[in-house]
Amino acid sequence: MSTQPHHLGIDLGGTRIKAVRVTTPGDLIEEANLAFEDRDRNWADTIRAFVDASAKAHGPPASIGVSAPGIAAPHGRHIAYLPGKLTGLEGLDWTSFLRSAKPIPVLNDAHAALLGEVWQGAARGCRNVFLLTLGTGVGGAAMVDGRLLKGHLGRAGHLGHVSLNFDGLPDDVGTPGSIEGEIGNKTLPRRTDGRFSSTETLVAAHRQGDADATRIWRRSVRALAAAIASLVNVLDPEVVILGGGIARAGADLFNPLREDLAEFEWRPGGAQVRILPARLGDLAGAYGSAWNGMRDKVGDDR
Amino acid sequence: MSTQPHHLGIDLGGTRIKAVRVTTPGDLIEEANLAFEDRDRNWADTIRAFVDASAKAHGPPASIGVSAPGIAAPHGRHIAYLPGKLTGLEGLDWTSFLRSAKPIPVLNDAHAALLGEVWQGAARGCRNVFLLTLGTGVGGAAMVDGRLLKGHLGRAGHLGHVSLNFDGLPDDVGTPGSIEGEIGNKTLPRRTDGRFSSTETLVAAHRQGDADATRIWRRSVRALAAAIASLVNVLDPEVVILGGGIARAGADLFNPLREDLAEFEWRPGGAQVRILPARLGDLAGAYGSAWNGMRDKVGDDR
Repeated sequence: MSTQPHHLGIDLGGTRIKAVRVTTPGDLIEEANLAFEDRDRNWADTIRAFVDASAKAHGPPASIGVSAPGIAAPHGRHIAYLPGKLTGLEGLDWTSFLRSAKPIPVLNDAHAALLGEVWQGAARGCRNVFLLTLGTGVGGAAMVDGRLLKGHLGRAGHLGHVSLNFDGLPDDVGTPGSIEGEIGNKTLPRRTDGRFSSTETLVAAHRQGDADATRIWRRSVRALAAAIASLVNVLDPEVVILGGGIARAGADLFNPLREDLAEFEWRPGGAQVRILPARLGDLAGAYGSAWNGMRDKVGDDR
Repeated sequence: MSTQPHHLGIDLGGTRIKAVRVTTPGDLIEEANLAFEDRDRNWADTIRAFVDASAKAHGPPASIGVSAPGIAAPHGRHIAYLPGKLTGLEGLDWTSFLRSAKPIPVLNDAHAALLGEVWQGAARGCRNVFLLTLGTGVGGAAMVDGRLLKGHLGRAGHLGHVSLNFDGLPDDVGTPGSIEGEIGNKTLPRRTDGRFSSTETLVAAHRQGDADATRIWRRSVRALAAAIASLVNVLDPEVVILGGGIARAGADLFNPLREDLAEFEWRPGGAQVRILPARLGDLAGAYGSAWNGMRDKVGDDR
């Protein structure tokens, strides 16, 4: 049994569960990457078994925090809205389900990832920052003046669903020509007449001098720059973090993006927003959940 | 001399100064609409003369708050950034200038207008709300989770500068195809091949069955709907307030806007954002300034 207090952060994804066990200042003691089966509520049973095994091996955690897809209820005890997947997640009270004496707060997964990056990642100590996760779709979360934006329903920070072309096709939530539609992997086959099915292969072709691939990739990056410039005017961050699989393109993403931002970004008095890659990878949500679980009440979110 | 405490709210605009004198709960005692001359710092002298005359006639105010164009410094004692107009405003410390014992906070004018509408106008009691002012340009401000968004530099809430067409022309701050460019009066001559110079005449022609005017107006409204739907996904309000001269189009604006929002707006579980006209007209900034002046420190902004 360890004697120093430890905390669990658990991030439920669509196919895997990521978990961290950390000290109060945020040092990683161990991490876990758990598969679950696509039946009944096997995701829930997997989490409960992990928590029980951890308590048996290391003693009870001082706190637990959870994150999951969907919109978390304003009081933060359950996910209020997630149609069509992870059946049973909507309305599940995590404090009861995990038989915890201390309340277990639940966060939207992108909200948790941002808090993780602010606590232990690319945006340590920042009070104004937003995160875009570029993958199958485009997710996001925003902190302004030291507080995570939650909003009326808890949906604030859905940054992938901003329109960049109001004549464009609607995305999953109805936004016409959204940034998710312009750069997400989901729409790549449509955007490339079926030539590419992943941004990784698109960027590889671009690197090898494929003019078509270069044109398509540059257009995606330009759309992303317009979205970032727009969100900078709305949210006024000092740092923007880019995560998700597409951000692994590295210089092929960040260099042209910086060129386009030099054209699009409003820089009052010369002030320029820093664009940084995420640092915690797929553990960001688990870190943010652990941090959120430690708190007794909502306050300053750094 | 009145005996109940009263408060001054002063909103400095580009050509006029609006001021209110109010009770602590926000009842209007009197309002003023002051012209100033376009020379030296006549705007500043006009405000000081007004404050001195008010104190002489009614006794000293319990507090004073000011709003003005530009970006307010994070500590709120002066406007930090406003290039090219109202020379002398940048850096002017209002507490010293108006010889006030109690600190006089200064807000960006759109931020003040939103606080005014939340305090005494269309969004009373709301914790999640944003304002768009539709006029020559498009301004804005946002409150999320009960707090006015200020951001790293104080520029948060510049909602007119979100891109709706990333191939479009840049606006004043570099945003390509922004909502300001799509609906602001400033760009109307360009958008109508010089036929219309004000939205009022455009909407009048639309009412009289001018097909060209209808096409142009409907396109502006559709762009506005896409911008609102985008900002709803980012900020998650329960209410959106539309102010400024263009909002006076009334049903000609609100009816088609509601149609387009039915198409573009994400409504999780059927939740729908209310779109309301501003109620305080051109006094909103003065009300918000008065309210801000009463506070001892920044906290919950309702």
